[in-house]
Amino acid sequence: MLLSIIYVIGITAEAMTGALSAGRRNMDWFGVMLVASATAIGGGSVRDILLGHYPLTWVKHPEYLLITCIAGIVTTWLAKWVVKFHGVFIRLDALGLAAFSVIGCQVGLNMGLHYGICVVAAVITGVFGGLLRDLICRQAPLVLHNELYASVSLVVACLYLTLHYFSIDENITVITSLIVGYLMRMASVRFKWRLPIFQLKVEESVH
Amino acid sequence: MLLSIIYVIGITAEAMTGALSAGRRNMDWFGVMLVASATAIGGGSVRDILLGHYPLTWVKHPEYLLITCIAGIVTTWLAKWVVKFHGVFIRLDALGLAAFSVIGCQVGLNMGLHYGICVVAAVITGVFGGLLRDLICRQAPLVLHNELYASVSLVVACLYLTLHYFSIDENITVITSLIVGYLMRMASVRFKWRLPIFQLKVEESVH
Amino acid sequence: MLLSIIYVIGITAEAMTGALSAGRRNMDWFGVMLVASATAIGGGSVRDILLGHYPLTWVKHPEYLLITCIAGIVTTWLAKWVVKFHGVFIRLDALGLAAFSVIGCQVGLNMGLHYGICVVAAVITGVFGGLLRDLICRQAPLVLHNELYASVSLVVACLYLTLHYFSIDENITVITSLIVGYLMRMASVRFKWRLPIFQLKVEESVH
Repeated sequence: MLLSIIYVIGITAEAMTGALSAGRRNMDWFGVMLVASATAIGGGSVRDILLGHYPLTWVKHPEYLLITCIAGIVTTWLAKWVVKFHGVFIRLDALGLAAFSVIGCQVGLNMGLHYGICVVAAVITGVFGGLLRDLICRQAPLVLHNELYASVSLVVACLYLTLHYFSIDENITVITSLIVGYLMRMASVRFKWRLPIFQLKVEESVH
Repeated sequence: MLLSIIYVIGITAEAMTGALSAGRRNMDWFGVMLVASATAIGGGSVRDILLGHYPLTWVKHPEYLLITCIAGIVTTWLAKWVVKFHGVFIRLDALGLAAFSVIGCQVGLNMGLHYGICVVAAVITGVFGGLLRDLICRQAPLVLHNELYASVSLVVACLYLTLHYFSIDENITVITSLIVGYLMRMASVRFKWRLPIFQLKVEESVH
Repeated sequence: MLLSIIYVIGITAEAMTGALSAGRRNMDWFGVMLVASATAIGGGSVRDILLGHYPLTWVKHPEYLLITCIAGIVTTWLAKWVVKFHGVFIRLDALGLAAFSVIGCQVGLNMGLHYGICVVAAVITGVFGGLLRDLICRQAPLVLHNELYASVSLVVACLYLTLHYFSIDENITVITSLIVGYLMRMASVRFKWRLPIFQLKVEESVH
């Protein structure tokens, strides 16, 4: 229940950041709704397609798609406000990232998949929405360059699975994972934690 | 039956416009066939993958894939002619858009999905082929900037579903939807109807 | 068995070339692992998603995903070495391309699909990994411009299916296909065999 509420908050926040990206590319309303929805529920959709986990969440719950489309359009009116309250969105996005990762894990576990694949499912849920946004808006994928993002998903997933493995109460497992994920993401934004970058400056090309 | 014929005309026209995009990027024959096929049958494929509607149309009917590949290659010989008869292709594409949208609706209804998801299925069928083309050819997605396109799909879908809901004869429903879709698309091209654009000129970035 | 070994060699080589592309875009470790994995096992994943062939290979065998991630990270340390032994990778990649094509055919045959679709499955397995790599790294898709690549897949698939049709011993069929595919790819690299290019220089746009 708590997770559902945080999920809705998460997709709303993600949809609004997606709409801003669409706005930077001068897209029309349909583009705004598309990018908003892809950012918010694209990660879960990619996960479900890769795992063969049908029906997709938004097909079963069309109201989620409605929320992301409305959030996108509302953003076109409140853009200045959204940009101004930048910090709020960073926080909501961090919460959403943690929630997405937990949900990804749960989907994997419910399908009886290998723990390693559950971790992958969590990371895909957390990260691929942003990747799709950047792909459609033709900008360098932020999640592959900036502060820790996928790594937060990874840590949340490992924590969740560990607590799950030792049969800790589900509520405690979820809440602990959410808090740790939120704090880790906020810390990595504040202290600019990054993964090592791989820079290659060769003219030759292998392929 | 009528719908099948229009569908084949639609994918042929879409494949030819896809091939032109590939030509602007100096692709080889394989690239031409790939972009032609993705443009023509990519929308339906994305829809079927998202809805879990297997097998995909072209897997069941490989002849459709053959048509799009041949249409792509033929376009490399007839490019000047295709560009010259620009107006014909706009018309065929408009007809194809209407047919794709009707087919998308029908797939959703046959799967017993929520009406809202049927509309989404229609829009995806109509729009994602062009989106895939622009993604592979790395150009700004036209359907998110220009004259009404996704909106035509939306209107066709709503009209089709309304007539279907009131149990109007299927043939009348299909033909009415095709005519309205065709006219709306042609009118929006002629009168340059567009959706509102969301322009954002901020240096700051939320993400 | 032989095919499995060559498959593992193939995905390792593909993962390393993917990692180099990520390095040219200054991605972080997660990006390196993502691009490496997408390059190596993305083709098979796209094939399985399009055919509805679940579970995907790496979901059933998470160790393959582990191999591609490790190969990606190792490449960040051995980049100079990898670039230096360019020729080795061309050879391994050629072998992998042939193996991927054979595996694509086998998947199609096992699903009882039309021979034409088996050929498409082979080409998708061989080509889409590189396409995904270039899409994520936002560079012109090499497989659509350069020396024969998709065509090698096509020839391997047709050869495999022909031998299969005449009930030739499976081992001989596989080995012959691998050898022909390898030689054809190496010859096309050496002699710069290419498909005809479709160049279109029109200002007008049909779409």
